[in-house]
Amino acid sequence: MTTRTEKDTLGLVEVPADAYYGAQTARAVANFPISGLRPHPALVWGTLVIKKCAARANMATGRLPVEIGDAIVRAADEALAGRFDADFVVDPFQAGAGTSHNMNVNEVLANRAEELLGGERGVYGRVNPNDHVNMAQSTNDVIPTAMRLAALRLHASLGPALAGLVASLLRKGKEFDQVLKSGRTHLQDAVPLRLGQEFEAYAVALEKNLTGLERTLPGLCELGLGGTAIGTGLNAEPRYIELVVAELARETGFPLRGTANLVETTQNMDPFVACSAALKGTAINLVRIANDLRLLASGPRTGLNEIALPALQPGSSIMPGKVNPVLPEVTDMVGFQVIGADTVITLAAQAGQLELNVMMPVIAHNLLFAMGILRNTVVRLAEGCIDGITANVERCRRYLDDSLGLVTVLAPYIGYAAAADVAKESARTGESIRDIVLARRLLEPERLAAIMEPYPLTSPGVPGKSGDQ
Amino acid sequence: MTTRTEKDTLGLVEVPADAYYGAQTARAVANFPISGLRPHPALVWGTLVIKKCAARANMATGRLPVEIGDAIVRAADEALAGRFDADFVVDPFQAGAGTSHNMNVNEVLANRAEELLGGERGVYGRVNPNDHVNMAQSTNDVIPTAMRLAALRLHASLGPALAGLVASLLRKGKEFDQVLKSGRTHLQDAVPLRLGQEFEAYAVALEKNLTGLERTLPGLCELGLGGTAIGTGLNAEPRYIELVVAELARETGFPLRGTANLVETTQNMDPFVACSAALKGTAINLVRIANDLRLLASGPRTGLNEIALPALQPGSSIMPGKVNPVLPEVTDMVGFQVIGADTVITLAAQAGQLELNVMMPVIAHNLLFAMGILRNTVVRLAEGCIDGITANVERCRRYLDDSLGLVTVLAPYIGYAAAADVAKESARTGESIRDIVLARRLLEPERLAAIMEPYPLTSPGVPGKSGDQ
Amino acid sequence: MTTRTEKDTLGLVEVPADAYYGAQTARAVANFPISGLRPHPALVWGTLVIKKCAARANMATGRLPVEIGDAIVRAADEALAGRFDADFVVDPFQAGAGTSHNMNVNEVLANRAEELLGGERGVYGRVNPNDHVNMAQSTNDVIPTAMRLAALRLHASLGPALAGLVASLLRKGKEFDQVLKSGRTHLQDAVPLRLGQEFEAYAVALEKNLTGLERTLPGLCELGLGGTAIGTGLNAEPRYIELVVAELARETGFPLRGTANLVETTQNMDPFVACSAALKGTAINLVRIANDLRLLASGPRTGLNEIALPALQPGSSIMPGKVNPVLPEVTDMVGFQVIGADTVITLAAQAGQLELNVMMPVIAHNLLFAMGILRNTVVRLAEGCIDGITANVERCRRYLDDSLGLVTVLAPYIGYAAAADVAKESARTGESIRDIVLARRLLEPERLAAIMEPYPLTSPGVPGKSGDQ
Amino acid sequence: MTTRTEKDTLGLVEVPADAYYGAQTARAVANFPISGLRPHPALVWGTLVIKKCAARANMATGRLPVEIGDAIVRAADEALAGRFDADFVVDPFQAGAGTSHNMNVNEVLANRAEELLGGERGVYGRVNPNDHVNMAQSTNDVIPTAMRLAALRLHASLGPALAGLVASLLRKGKEFDQVLKSGRTHLQDAVPLRLGQEFEAYAVALEKNLTGLERTLPGLCELGLGGTAIGTGLNAEPRYIELVVAELARETGFPLRGTANLVETTQNMDPFVACSAALKGTAINLVRIANDLRLLASGPRTGLNEIALPALQPGSSIMPGKVNPVLPEVTDMVGFQVIGADTVITLAAQAGQLELNVMMPVIAHNLLFAMGILRNTVVRLAEGCIDGITANVERCRRYLDDSLGLVTVLAPYIGYAAAADVAKESARTGESIRDIVLARRLLEPERLAAIMEPYPLTSPGVPGKSGDQ
Repeated sequence: MTTRTEKDTLGLVEVPADAYYGAQTARAVANFPISGLRPHPALVWGTLVIKKCAARANMATGRLPVEIGDAIVRAADEALAGRFDADFVVDPFQAGAGTSHNMNVNEVLANRAEELLGGERGVYGRVNPNDHVNMAQSTNDVIPTAMRLAALRLHASLGPALAGLVASLLRKGKEFDQVLKSGRTHLQDAVPLRLGQEFEAYAVALEKNLTGLERTLPGLCELGLGGTAIGTGLNAEPRYIELVVAELARETGFPLRGTANLVETTQNMDPFVACSAALKGTAINLVRIANDLRLLASGPRTGLNEIALPALQPGSSIMPGKVNPVLPEVTDMVGFQVIGADTVITLAAQAGQLELNVMMPVIAHNLLFAMGILRNTVVRLAEGCIDGITANVERCRRYLDDSLGLVTVLAPYIGYAAAADVAKESARTGESIRDIVLARRLLEPERLAAIMEPYPLTSPGVPGKSGDQ
Repeated sequence: MTTRTEKDTLGLVEVPADAYYGAQTARAVANFPISGLRPHPALVWGTLVIKKCAARANMATGRLPVEIGDAIVRAADEALAGRFDADFVVDPFQAGAGTSHNMNVNEVLANRAEELLGGERGVYGRVNPNDHVNMAQSTNDVIPTAMRLAALRLHASLGPALAGLVASLLRKGKEFDQVLKSGRTHLQDAVPLRLGQEFEAYAVALEKNLTGLERTLPGLCELGLGGTAIGTGLNAEPRYIELVVAELARETGFPLRGTANLVETTQNMDPFVACSAALKGTAINLVRIANDLRLLASGPRTGLNEIALPALQPGSSIMPGKVNPVLPEVTDMVGFQVIGADTVITLAAQAGQLELNVMMPVIAHNLLFAMGILRNTVVRLAEGCIDGITANVERCRRYLDDSLGLVTVLAPYIGYAAAADVAKESARTGESIRDIVLARRLLEPERLAAIMEPYPLTSPGVPGKSGDQ
Repeated sequence: MTTRTEKDTLGLVEVPADAYYGAQTARAVANFPISGLRPHPALVWGTLVIKKCAARANMATGRLPVEIGDAIVRAADEALAGRFDADFVVDPFQAGAGTSHNMNVNEVLANRAEELLGGERGVYGRVNPNDHVNMAQSTNDVIPTAMRLAALRLHASLGPALAGLVASLLRKGKEFDQVLKSGRTHLQDAVPLRLGQEFEAYAVALEKNLTGLERTLPGLCELGLGGTAIGTGLNAEPRYIELVVAELARETGFPLRGTANLVETTQNMDPFVACSAALKGTAINLVRIANDLRLLASGPRTGLNEIALPALQPGSSIMPGKVNPVLPEVTDMVGFQVIGADTVITLAAQAGQLELNVMMPVIAHNLLFAMGILRNTVVRLAEGCIDGITANVERCRRYLDDSLGLVTVLAPYIGYAAAADVAKESARTGESIRDIVLARRLLEPERLAAIMEPYPLTSPGVPGKSGDQ
Repeated sequence: MTTRTEKDTLGLVEVPADAYYGAQTARAVANFPISGLRPHPALVWGTLVIKKCAARANMATGRLPVEIGDAIVRAADEALAGRFDADFVVDPFQAGAGTSHNMNVNEVLANRAEELLGGERGVYGRVNPNDHVNMAQSTNDVIPTAMRLAALRLHASLGPALAGLVASLLRKGKEFDQVLKSGRTHLQDAVPLRLGQEFEAYAVALEKNLTGLERTLPGLCELGLGGTAIGTGLNAEPRYIELVVAELARETGFPLRGTANLVETTQNMDPFVACSAALKGTAINLVRIANDLRLLASGPRTGLNEIALPALQPGSSIMPGKVNPVLPEVTDMVGFQVIGADTVITLAAQAGQLELNVMMPVIAHNLLFAMGILRNTVVRLAEGCIDGITANVERCRRYLDDSLGLVTVLAPYIGYAAAADVAKESARTGESIRDIVLARRLLEPERLAAIMEPYPLTSPGVPGKSGDQ
């Protein structure tokens, strides 16, 4: 590999000759050969947008010469179009609170702007990564702002993905509205229910999670950009601070606003903690729902077999004909990963010290990775699983008729103790609840029939009592 | 111990003769000798309030005879006054989704109501725990409702406690507004800051956590009471459902409302997950702030010694005169416990199956315990620590003058590279930034003095540039 | 409450007149009104044993006058017999790395020793809590040693409890050895298995967890006592260090030994981290097994119903006759709590700084609480659940015969693809695997019968191939 | 992209024309577009080794024709040399307990073996992925075995990396053995210590973690290969089971052995749980040590400044000359990620059901990722940080002389209370401990000098008492 020699404040560094990045990026590549991963595309996007808007704001205040500023903006636009994707190379497990990532972007844009102005990469004669591209900025305000923008960008696709899953579940809720079955609590026979009610309840639960996620957006929209090194705003003019936030809002379309307390916003990771917590809450319900689907679809011969999931792939390398609930299983695993990401973010957030939380890179990595896999999973679950679920109506009805939980409807008429006695005899002998009640003459046949009419049992009311339903 | 013999649907049980609880409670005590703990008082309170309001609602619909209903209400009032505290005895680590706790309360109230009507404990001739006290209820709707009420009750003291801590921090923020010091990032010298800004930032961070907590209240106020066994509302009349929620709102003063989907609300633990997440977010910031306080108060001779915390107790059994930062340390430990509680709640919430989450008891235990210790800690931290903090003004000022971070203010004038060179010489020789700049004639003395005037350095602006501050 | 006035290095303190504890304990009670809990009895025991053995060792080196030392030993013996249980009052959520707990014990023993020597409580004229009871000790070496002793003591009952559960599972493994059933993977039909194999596998898994737990004992047996304040051993004579460890080994019967590196042992929480991890590993398998039991016992009408668990209590306040799997459910919840305790211990252990981990109290609380509830649960699970499990032999056999997984045994003879085709037809038509194979003349009837003979299918070998089984 | 059409048991599938993988892999690629990641190279290696050894064992039992077997072995050798790296394409977030990954490897080897025998990809005329490459295997025994092999392979480099870090720390321990300083507990002044003792203690702590990791190897070496679908060994001849394990041991050089209970080993994730717990234990100590290094190196002007870390890269985009402790910071972040991985593994392990844990893919991903980044980090920390640390001897000595903790050495002579009084006066006036003792005539000057001679204070003994040191 041919290289060029660059110089930074610590000395000379060899940089690949054709790289747009420079000395500090090259040092970071050598310093952090940890995971082999590249920065999340959304984080690169967020950082580039900041650089572009900062250049504009700095031109507007007159601090940045227009020729240089324009070149930086053009370089940023090229980068946003994906032209330098291969040049963003620092491992997500980097230190310096993201200084290396920030300098990676500064260097790429400086070198490209230099080129656009007729210069060469690695010279920095016209455009300097620190003095121009990073003007009025610090890693300490750029990185948390870039993380916010990246999270908002991912939310823009995660939100609709979740809404799509909710819609799929609601459709099934309607489709299965007349499928009567037995409820189960503690995995034991309970009282009647409609299959549609189960799917509707899943939809409502996830809708609440979606609302919970949306409640974290205002925190992500509050920017500390302009706080520079520690949130005091040293080297950032007040007018620049106003302008750069307005530019960002215009450029991204997000309802961004400047923070009322730059010091706090620089050091407090709470918006990411809250966002991760909302993801975790969503993951919890997804895991629960996925587990229910796996249980209801268990069998076909040795399980509950109430529903059938679409067959997506052969399920076993040894057992022919087996089809597994692969998307609910992936949903579980992704849910666990999201919960694990929350653990990492928790540890990193509590480790902040004084004016800065230097653990931001690992927060960014986990938050953005979690959002991405959650979105992808939710889309697949809706399209590849939920939408194709069919109900085994007869099996469901059989469970309804057999369930010992049916005895509950009798309690208001014959009392808890007598009803329990009926249930015990049914469990012992296998005789139906109905037959035992009649044999014991606990209720008249017509009365019993009215009370045990199944559909009304799935809504509030004392069965058989007129006027309730 | 003398006992009386009771009978439930599984057979005969010995119960302590003078106990107000009955057979099922006695079984639970024998079944769950796990932790030796008693139910959280707030959970007992919440359950009692439900029983009282349910009795009223059931009387209003005409289903519960007034004589019995009134006796139950009177019994509940006595219990709420603490008269039967010793009778709520089931270990928080119980199963049955809280059936044992629910039956414990049903039995105590039934026996006491029986007494009030002239009967004896253990007879249930007039008042039956299931048929009367538990009328139109199920453990499955009572327990999650009682958990909500308990969490709301604890929030009613936790919220003000947190607000008090915020107020204490804001007062210190004002008191220390003129105390100039050096900021630190990565624990390394950074640019100037006022001590008051640090305390103000802590206050703002916790204020946001408080807001985050409050955002979880509407979810806790949405009740599934009336859903009975699995949320279908079997055996609960629609009018009862309306009435009982209204009674509860009146009795507790909380803005409670009935859920739009009883099935979902019965099984979805999200309100507790969200509340726990908000507690965890608060804990994270408390841990971070406590760690900062410990660091800033470190020494007095071998640490930073910027502030002094009140001395609350001798700090060592072997080192005389040592005083430790005990309340920040307790805050750390309580913060860790709250985060651990969130782990438990996460595991329990994802373990819900079909119509019910049977893990509710362990969710209740961890949520309520976490809220209680957090509240108690926050009060102590404010009163026993924050309010008594004093600043070591000279020490702070010395750090300001010595910090290598000061060189940052020169960068807009002499460029990043030249400024770095000054910093390196200062680090090597120990000479001050100021002297090196003058020796190298990088700036005129008056210009330098204007630029390095400290107070303005702690607010946005390019130092020395007129019109910015 | 009448009080006496005591004095410590910070000033005057009111102490309840009849308390054996003194000024520092009273300060701690006022400083830490956090959880309302008392110290774990095992921790009190461990601390008392240390005080007793230290007094003996200090007498042996001649540093502690025999009269005083004997009085301390007598006081410790009384305390070990439970006489002063009510005097150990400091909240587990205390700070100072356990200084308050250590001083609580020092003060109780000093006051009682003083009494035994004819003096009065609160005077410390003959016996001083710091100079005599705490001689050659520091909180920094006493607390981690007391935690080790407490954990070893709890292990002494937890180990046998786990072994008992293993034995119960093995017995069921034998009892159910001939109960043929269908295996399930992904909750889908799989190949044949004996119910006994499942229980045996659970036993083996837990036996490995038990071994895992035992592997953590040597770390707990390595003591840093004698390291005093920071592990350098200042104020502790080398001969005392040897003697006190030997005394402790003799007194407790544990194979204790002194550490090779006192500084490391003072600050490194790894023995507790490792112990907690082993508990977590055990909890994971217990949760898994409990979930399997709940699933296999589901129904009776709407679930798998392969086994029946003993009925321990009525399962519902509204559904008569319902019996829930209460002990497996409690096992789940306790498992979650143990995992949550591990989170707390992880956070606390990583928070150690320099010569000490001041978070020891919260580590102690969570570790000992987890060990206690795990032990209690395991005993109950074995005795109240496993021992009474019965198999539903017919139901199991029916699953075996119906399972689509049976087709797997044909693959070596007719190939994976043809076998899959048979499975698909069976799934579609409901016809048995057997009938389809015969109808398609894929195998001769006798050959098929030989291949599908069920018992041999549950052991290694290609079915129907002679000489394999 | 040109494609070929393949057929599996679910129907027709388009496969890229030049791919070595086949229909099931193509389905999996379409089904699981979750993370965009590829399988961990160590997992691919482990799976390939199994296929090679299984082919050999199946040839040895005579079940697999030698021509086919040899072709599979040759194909596996080519794959192990990296020739088909681009063909292992299934996302780590896949379902089916790893069926897709297993079939990916089966298909690549079948197609390549087919080619080697003169056939074409996608035809499977001579070599079938299920019937030949997967002979006597199931995903259920292949995947946990491949995970074990992968973990063992990573341990083979992680172990030496950790040992290297221990050696680096020990070297510094020796180098700094004479550097006297003040210890700190609670971040407050404590008694004297040598800097070398701190580094030695770190080394010993990590050495114990290394031992802890090694204790998990036997569990990883116990293989369930041969258990096939659910651990009963259906379709696997006993002699094959013996042979394949022996082949694997020979091929890998690891001390592998067959399990005594195939059913248990198929479903129990404990070896991975235990390995992850040991990684977490190591991470905890690494985080703690990294934090200590950051604290000791804090400053240079506003922190403790006891040691200096090598400067690896400019530390700030805005603050010139700043150098951050980047490798300790990365160590923290990697430590947090390892702890987060343990959360995921915990959740996945407890989610096992009946005969299988279908969450294995997410366990594999997190375990192997954690091992890899931990190894890489540990190597960088040793070489890029520890080896270049220098001590600031004068600063350390100044802390020693100033520390209020010095008063502790006087307590055995003047008592705890009098010593505390000296400490308080010193704290108030700034006078040295030494001067106050002399002024108060508490000890003779020579005696005091003997007692306070610093080096002996860092080892066990009562200072100034002859014969102790």
